[in-house]
Amino acid sequence: MAAVALALPLPEASWPPSLAPLKAVDDLLRCGICFDYFNIAMIIPQCSHNYCSLCIRKFLSYKTQCPTCCVAVSESDLKNNRTLDELVKSFNSARQQLFQLVVDTPVISSPL
Amino acid sequence: MAAVALALPLPEASWPPSLAPLKAVDDLLRCGICFDYFNIAMIIPQCSHNYCSLCIRKFLSYKTQCPTCCVAVSESDLKNNRTLDELVKSFNSARQQLFQLVVDTPVISSPL
Ligand SMILES: [Zn+2]
Ligand SMILES: [Zn+2]
Ligand SMILES: [Zn+2]
Ligand SMILES: [Zn+2]
Repeated sequence: MAAVALALPLPEASWPPSLAPLKAVDDLLRCGICFDYFNIAMIIPQCSHNYCSLCIRKFLSYKTQCPTCCVAVSESDLKNNRTLDELVKSFNSARQQLFQLVVDTPVISSPL
Repeated sequence: MAAVALALPLPEASWPPSLAPLKAVDDLLRCGICFDYFNIAMIIPQCSHNYCSLCIRKFLSYKTQCPTCCVAVSESDLKNNRTLDELVKSFNSARQQLFQLVVDTPVISSPL
């Protein structure tokens, strides 16, 4: 998501072992189309799947269905899932602070 | 939320300083009616507020509006916000593992 600059040079894929439990949370905050964090998360109310606003609108202009479960969707069905946007912001910030903590205190970067 | 047993004896309020960045994420995963983690999260599509299914249904039986923003709501408007349920499960599990890690490696429980 371009709007949230990643302050840390660590690649997305490399989670310190001590923070690995958070990886599942991270996965749930990502769009199934672009795989980045949700950027203006839109929920499809009939199936509960979520995508970035731009990603799903582009997709629907080609095919009027949910990319995951194929339920019929029109653009007017989409509703903002604001809590996901707030979770992306808070989680991304927490993740950066915790990564920094692991870098600063190497003892906790050893496997559990 | 009765369905997710808390394995740790630590009271909800006491976050170790090193894990404090996650408190904002925790707050976002709680229902504004019962203040516990969402239990079957339902979104009100017209305002994007979320509550536990039981909490909001009980509320709507008294007053047909959103408890937070007062927009008119009927029970048939409610849609499951499944990603929030999955986030509660993953986050609660991660939180317990990280709390345990802090207990086991006291060095990281000191303030940042
Ligand atoms: Zn996307
Ligand atoms: Zn779907
Ligand atoms: Zn509730
Ligand atoms: Zn509302």
